[in-house]
Amino acid sequence: ATEIPKGVAFRNILKSSKNALVVTKKEYLKEDWCKTEQLVQKIREPGCLQATVLNNFCYGQCNSFYIPKNPRRREGNDERPPPAFKSCSFCKPKKFTWITVTLRCPGQNPPFKRKRLQKIKQCKCLPVGVN
Amino acid sequence: ATEIPKGVAFRNILKSSKNALVVTKKEYLKEDWCKTEQLVQKIREPGCLQATVLNNFCYGQCNSFYIPKNPRRREGNDERPPPAFKSCSFCKPKKFTWITVTLRCPGQNPPFKRKRLQKIKQCKCLPVGVN
Repeated sequence: ATEIPKGVAFRNILKSSKNALVVTKKEYLKEDWCKTEQLVQKIREPGCLQATVLNNFCYGQCNSFYIPKNPRRREGNDERPPPAFKSCSFCKPKKFTWITVTLRCPGQNPPFKRKRLQKIKQCKCLPVGVN
Repeated sequence: ATEIPKGVAFRNILKSSKNALVVTKKEYLKEDWCKTEQLVQKIREPGCLQATVLNNFCYGQCNSFYIPKNPRRREGNDERPPPAFKSCSFCKPKKFTWITVTLRCPGQNPPFKRKRLQKIKQCKCLPVGVN
């Protein structure tokens, strides 16, 4: 579930420092996690019978990093700061559907009410934009 | 370093599910981490002497979660899906400064070049917008 890029480009950024290389160690980075846990949602409306939806929620600890880049080589002075090499992952739904729950509302007109719900099926550490 | 809100509002969202309450357990959530590690940056320019800057980079695993909200109670049908309750943290610089590095370039005109650098002092799990 790691979002840290592998291979040449990443190693080049870090090659000036032995300490930074620890980030690329596969065993180390694999330890991030994102759980899909059951959540019982009770849908209530005045005048209607309660409905129960078996849903899921996501929580976890995903990899992120922020590594300053070296300044670009240029002719003359270049006081523009170089961008950083950064990445962040978010424990969020990877697979989900939208469902419609119909509540029975006896004696009401109409005798039902509909509610839209996001039903989470699977969670994963997924990259978020951090620029 | 957790970004998960404490107290009544969060507990209300989760009260329909015992499983979800595990998220609010303080001991559990405190385990996220964000390290400030040393990075040696070598600044090179053609015709100039190399300069070395002792910088830092950030990496870690910060808390994030995504919990579907219950639909709002309304008159009539409401098929608009409710928003989710979500939060994501990013291991990034909490304290930093901008420094200017002056490289000596003997025999060049001018005999120096300047480079701007972001010098990272301290990293922390900080919230990122995920809306």
